[in-house]
Amino acid sequence: MSQYQAFSVELADNIAHVQINRPEKINSMNAAFWSEIIEIFQWIDDTDEARVVVLSGAGKHFSSGIDLMMLAGVANEMGKDVGRNARLLRRKILQLQASFNAVDNCRKPVLAAIQGYCLGGAIDLIAACDMRYAAEDAQFSIKEIDIGMAADVGTLQRLPRIIGDGMLRELAYTGRTFGADEARSIGLVNRVYSDAAGLLDGVMGIAREIAAKSPIAVTGTKEMISYMRDHRIDDGLEYVATWNAAMLQSTDLRVAMAAHMSKQKPEFLD
Amino acid sequence: MSQYQAFSVELADNIAHVQINRPEKINSMNAAFWSEIIEIFQWIDDTDEARVVVLSGAGKHFSSGIDLMMLAGVANEMGKDVGRNARLLRRKILQLQASFNAVDNCRKPVLAAIQGYCLGGAIDLIAACDMRYAAEDAQFSIKEIDIGMAADVGTLQRLPRIIGDGMLRELAYTGRTFGADEARSIGLVNRVYSDAAGLLDGVMGIAREIAAKSPIAVTGTKEMISYMRDHRIDDGLEYVATWNAAMLQSTDLRVAMAAHMSKQKPEFLD
Amino acid sequence: MSQYQAFSVELADNIAHVQINRPEKINSMNAAFWSEIIEIFQWIDDTDEARVVVLSGAGKHFSSGIDLMMLAGVANEMGKDVGRNARLLRRKILQLQASFNAVDNCRKPVLAAIQGYCLGGAIDLIAACDMRYAAEDAQFSIKEIDIGMAADVGTLQRLPRIIGDGMLRELAYTGRTFGADEARSIGLVNRVYSDAAGLLDGVMGIAREIAAKSPIAVTGTKEMISYMRDHRIDDGLEYVATWNAAMLQSTDLRVAMAAHMSKQKPEFLD
Amino acid sequence: MSQYQAFSVELADNIAHVQINRPEKINSMNAAFWSEIIEIFQWIDDTDEARVVVLSGAGKHFSSGIDLMMLAGVANEMGKDVGRNARLLRRKILQLQASFNAVDNCRKPVLAAIQGYCLGGAIDLIAACDMRYAAEDAQFSIKEIDIGMAADVGTLQRLPRIIGDGMLRELAYTGRTFGADEARSIGLVNRVYSDAAGLLDGVMGIAREIAAKSPIAVTGTKEMISYMRDHRIDDGLEYVATWNAAMLQSTDLRVAMAAHMSKQKPEFLD
Amino acid sequence: MSQYQAFSVELADNIAHVQINRPEKINSMNAAFWSEIIEIFQWIDDTDEARVVVLSGAGKHFSSGIDLMMLAGVANEMGKDVGRNARLLRRKILQLQASFNAVDNCRKPVLAAIQGYCLGGAIDLIAACDMRYAAEDAQFSIKEIDIGMAADVGTLQRLPRIIGDGMLRELAYTGRTFGADEARSIGLVNRVYSDAAGLLDGVMGIAREIAAKSPIAVTGTKEMISYMRDHRIDDGLEYVATWNAAMLQSTDLRVAMAAHMSKQKPEFLD
Amino acid sequence: MSQYQAFSVELADNIAHVQINRPEKINSMNAAFWSEIIEIFQWIDDTDEARVVVLSGAGKHFSSGIDLMMLAGVANEMGKDVGRNARLLRRKILQLQASFNAVDNCRKPVLAAIQGYCLGGAIDLIAACDMRYAAEDAQFSIKEIDIGMAADVGTLQRLPRIIGDGMLRELAYTGRTFGADEARSIGLVNRVYSDAAGLLDGVMGIAREIAAKSPIAVTGTKEMISYMRDHRIDDGLEYVATWNAAMLQSTDLRVAMAAHMSKQKPEFLD
Repeated sequence: MSQYQAFSVELADNIAHVQINRPEKINSMNAAFWSEIIEIFQWIDDTDEARVVVLSGAGKHFSSGIDLMMLAGVANEMGKDVGRNARLLRRKILQLQASFNAVDNCRKPVLAAIQGYCLGGAIDLIAACDMRYAAEDAQFSIKEIDIGMAADVGTLQRLPRIIGDGMLRELAYTGRTFGADEARSIGLVNRVYSDAAGLLDGVMGIAREIAAKSPIAVTGTKEMISYMRDHRIDDGLEYVATWNAAMLQSTDLRVAMAAHMSKQKPEFLD
Repeated sequence: MSQYQAFSVELADNIAHVQINRPEKINSMNAAFWSEIIEIFQWIDDTDEARVVVLSGAGKHFSSGIDLMMLAGVANEMGKDVGRNARLLRRKILQLQASFNAVDNCRKPVLAAIQGYCLGGAIDLIAACDMRYAAEDAQFSIKEIDIGMAADVGTLQRLPRIIGDGMLRELAYTGRTFGADEARSIGLVNRVYSDAAGLLDGVMGIAREIAAKSPIAVTGTKEMISYMRDHRIDDGLEYVATWNAAMLQSTDLRVAMAAHMSKQKPEFLD
Repeated sequence: MSQYQAFSVELADNIAHVQINRPEKINSMNAAFWSEIIEIFQWIDDTDEARVVVLSGAGKHFSSGIDLMMLAGVANEMGKDVGRNARLLRRKILQLQASFNAVDNCRKPVLAAIQGYCLGGAIDLIAACDMRYAAEDAQFSIKEIDIGMAADVGTLQRLPRIIGDGMLRELAYTGRTFGADEARSIGLVNRVYSDAAGLLDGVMGIAREIAAKSPIAVTGTKEMISYMRDHRIDDGLEYVATWNAAMLQSTDLRVAMAAHMSKQKPEFLD
Repeated sequence: MSQYQAFSVELADNIAHVQINRPEKINSMNAAFWSEIIEIFQWIDDTDEARVVVLSGAGKHFSSGIDLMMLAGVANEMGKDVGRNARLLRRKILQLQASFNAVDNCRKPVLAAIQGYCLGGAIDLIAACDMRYAAEDAQFSIKEIDIGMAADVGTLQRLPRIIGDGMLRELAYTGRTFGADEARSIGLVNRVYSDAAGLLDGVMGIAREIAAKSPIAVTGTKEMISYMRDHRIDDGLEYVATWNAAMLQSTDLRVAMAAHMSKQKPEFLD
Repeated sequence: MSQYQAFSVELADNIAHVQINRPEKINSMNAAFWSEIIEIFQWIDDTDEARVVVLSGAGKHFSSGIDLMMLAGVANEMGKDVGRNARLLRRKILQLQASFNAVDNCRKPVLAAIQGYCLGGAIDLIAACDMRYAAEDAQFSIKEIDIGMAADVGTLQRLPRIIGDGMLRELAYTGRTFGADEARSIGLVNRVYSDAAGLLDGVMGIAREIAAKSPIAVTGTKEMISYMRDHRIDDGLEYVATWNAAMLQSTDLRVAMAAHMSKQKPEFLD
Repeated sequence: MSQYQAFSVELADNIAHVQINRPEKINSMNAAFWSEIIEIFQWIDDTDEARVVVLSGAGKHFSSGIDLMMLAGVANEMGKDVGRNARLLRRKILQLQASFNAVDNCRKPVLAAIQGYCLGGAIDLIAACDMRYAAEDAQFSIKEIDIGMAADVGTLQRLPRIIGDGMLRELAYTGRTFGADEARSIGLVNRVYSDAAGLLDGVMGIAREIAAKSPIAVTGTKEMISYMRDHRIDDGLEYVATWNAAMLQSTDLRVAMAAHMSKQKPEFLD
């Protein structure tokens, strides 16, 4: 595990804790952020010891979204030909998307813990996580509309699978701020905690529960749920049958059964 | 803007207000309704000045659905050969669907304001809008089941993207009436207002907010959300990257940024 | 209607009541269960008199899920070659899936009435029903995670169309038990009744309402809603136009219209 | 049937003959062409008497493709904002595509008869037809690459369903001219005739054969084949079952059977 | 292996030979045919010893298609209500389709050997096979158009994946007869043999080659190719990775490798 | 441009020539091959000067496919738990696939020049190229079946879009060797040259033609054709309209037009 400029990362008790660590910049997403997040989640994906991930923000806020300096940098690279600028912009956007795809594609569940600001790019980020939990003081906004652009790193693509179409449109067209309770009532977050400390405790508790389950079963379950966002039910059924054709031959079933019979806590290999 | 038999249409402050205007017939949908709505939404789509649409019903009710005289008219056109009747019916249904597709395909957000009856075809209509808002006295019913037919102009196709599967089935199989509060709790409407006047005020307020945003950003956002009802996340990401390759070269970003810096309200071209 | 080992089946007033009938085994799903359910729903599908189905469990509980003896039986059939074991397992899983596909594919609406335990395979089963209703004492758990496996007979495939993605993941990764009220608030069940008797009364009442509608309209409505879980809106619109090209030539429309005019209850053919 | 500037249209013996009629301009596609073709094919679609369509070009050539004056016209409409220009261009392209979609969506088979030049937009056009037949002197070229653009009115979208991927790419990247024999060997045309006169005779002969079949059967067959370009086999099977549920109740089956038994030529209603 | 009325079935040397055996009726497809074919292919699917299938017709012809008496039988079941007739017809068609789906879904390769007539339903049948081989005297016709109907048991759904779109439409709209050489040149058959005896010899030779390969590898290969008819390339890549995750742990790889090294013929388990 | 162990790479006249360069090992694909190919095609994708790619093999043969030592290496990493082995194998296969995805996803056309052996993995590789050209002595074989496995790095996924289904199955089930002429007749290669020298000359000639076209037009054309392998026609039409909304604002159209008018060769920016 190397050192990062925009993050601090810890692995303990099979839980990887990834924290955005630029509190003095309201955890805004600078160039280091966008490249390091790929590295980190690649490492988590490759590290069997990490069974579940908690993603949080250091300080008072989760994140204020993309660092506007970064956008200015792209503007400076543009030339005179509209076609070649379009070619450049398209590639830049695809690169930014790749950063959050790394979160979405991670084989282990990712739990986001959100306090304070969660704006613009931060919504794109939490939409790529498995579950979201918030402190009372959390404030959400699909801010991109106020910069004069359609959100293009995941919010408009992933949120429709998470919250209702009607309210999503209102939030995306107006960019209005909404709080933790509304976030819970529309299904964006699973639970609201009274403060940031209680939030992290609570989320770590859920993470521990998941880390105690069979890693083979947990990653299989995530693969199947993610698959269903974009596939037919019949395809999903055939896919899980093919997947489990191998996975049901794992020792984890026997371990789980034995523990079940003996009323003891099972211990699974990583 | 021409005169219409079934509608009154106004455009002011970048908001197109489309009102079903047959209150003496409970705004039922007659032949004029079905053809004029295409014309109106085509005109809105082509008119850059119109940035957002409010759709309402004149009088006490939003609409009681399709005019049963129209159905009788189709019945009269039928001949003796079942195959040729089927050919005729299929084309008629596709034509009716085209009327509400014009609403759905409109590039500007459409906000429905609903009071009183919203029955049968009226549910098909509001399902083709972006957002729905209701007065306390609103009454909804997927009425087609009581005419002995499966709804075929959009309710069964678009509602599953808006409300939960389980409750949709109950409402569609039984045709039972439900009120504004239940409509809000299942995600069909975003907010409930105490009466029709408050409703129109409230919806106009939201429309004004949207009309003040960059039209390039708003139509792009609508395109992306609508696209995601039927496409995969990876396709959606690639599509928005291709879309924004052109749109991020618009001056609207600079206007929005400058306004943001100077804490002033941005002014966008149509 | 033959006799069954795992079920009792009754048909009266156009309602088929299918009851899992092994209360002494908490209605766990044994070999007879998995094969009889196909037969029963095939028979319902072929029997025009049956217009709607109520699925319930005899005794205190709906069902504790798959009988673990059955799983042990499969384990005994396995040989030494991993590839051939995979071939065997894949076919077994596809066979189990076929049992619940028979419920999902049944052309008549299926209403589940759930009291007490509803665990593991029982969640897979109710996910294949149209609507779900519960008694206050109902307890749900996506139990498969605790056996060390990803659920593979429908829960992970069908629930994402019914409840929100974020909460589904929490429930599937942790396997935690949740009650009737939470089930209703996440959209898993449509209504909660105070006890098992009230539950069955209530569900039978809804079933009677549906049974009184045109069977042509009800099965068409189900076909369309089920179709939309996996298809695009434009495909759905074309499909219903093709479907109704025949069905609108049915006499049921005239019967429904006449009843509507005369304010009488319509009587439809099976 | 009205008069057209860019076409001459005739209907005889149940065959609509649509001829591009600007031989002095090598049948290039001007503004009148693009709007009239929609009208013509809409009329054909609505006219039961027209059972099959032959599409040809007057004079020595089929067509040299889009009239470059038209493109210049669009260029003149462009303003200073890249974003708003993109909005304008996207709509213009969608409008041009609609012209050839009208051909593709026509419910009756369309047979293209091609002699001489068939360049650029003309390839887009014939790709929207059902079958293509050529004279020996036909010359084909996917010309758009030489104007500095990717073809955007159908060639790159429809040809992959008609000719092999490998050769399509060579032809599209290089824009090289190819003749009737190569066109036949790659599956672009069904048959090559020695000259334009023989070509039209031959194609009219095939059209007559088709016009003598049941119109219910022919349009159903076209619907199914077109559907399969974009749908799964299982969806196609379900769709044809739903379609034929009505169409097999047509009298055409009895007429066909009776003719078959009595060895006489059947006569079908339009 | 039981006795069949419409077929004779043999299993030897790991090859199942399924022969349509009603030569006195030109192997037309009667009621026994449609139900027995499901049983036979189910049995083949379940019998590991059967590794490859040859499907042929006894006598001078492969098959003249559906027995017209069967169609007459369905006509007799029809009642007065168009809607209920449609319901009946749709189910009948789905049942007939299920017969050829059993061929398509069989996990082992199916090779069709075709001499003489191959008309109507016989085309539907061979389209559900993996490969097709013909004798010089074979005569093909998509005959359904001459009965006044669109083919509905697979021809229009599966042939577009096998032969070119342009020629398919000509053959389906006109129903014209075509011979073995044209069938080969359009990709319908892989090879033409001079007579029926040579045909069966040749096809048996290819079947023997396939039967000598690893059954795990052959069924995996078929699964993947069939999957690609209806799925995206990225889905196909992920599916084969999941599939091979189990199958590459089979002993067949070691057996194949060892044989390869020692230049000997490998012997695989069934 | 760095040095590679398994390749030699040159860039001249806007053509990148990528040559597999292990002739003494029949250009078999070792570990260096699989990682370097990603780097190389990433570099080509990022290098505007490279407008088209020629992929060839040094020496007498194109490539004998995967290095069997590599497979043995994977076998050694395997442990005792079938489930964890499956997890490992799945990731390894996805990694190998990524190497050829880099070729497929390259935005510039890739032309394969094939002489001598083209076996197993080499077929997977050329299936990821845009076009294929062969020398008379080329020998092709889908060799994986003889190692006891289903091909899993692209052959079974990409070939069905290139050659006919019927012949693909024969070649994949039997693994039989076929030559250049058969390869051309089934559409696998576009042209056959008499020897390796003539082959490289010919392919370079085609590459030069493509390199002289507008790079904006060529990459747009490739994007559209590749997109159509997996998308619907209507989606493709909308996608190209969105793409060209930006690209038609490029100066390349004016350059191309001017050159066309003045009958001169256009010069495009990279």
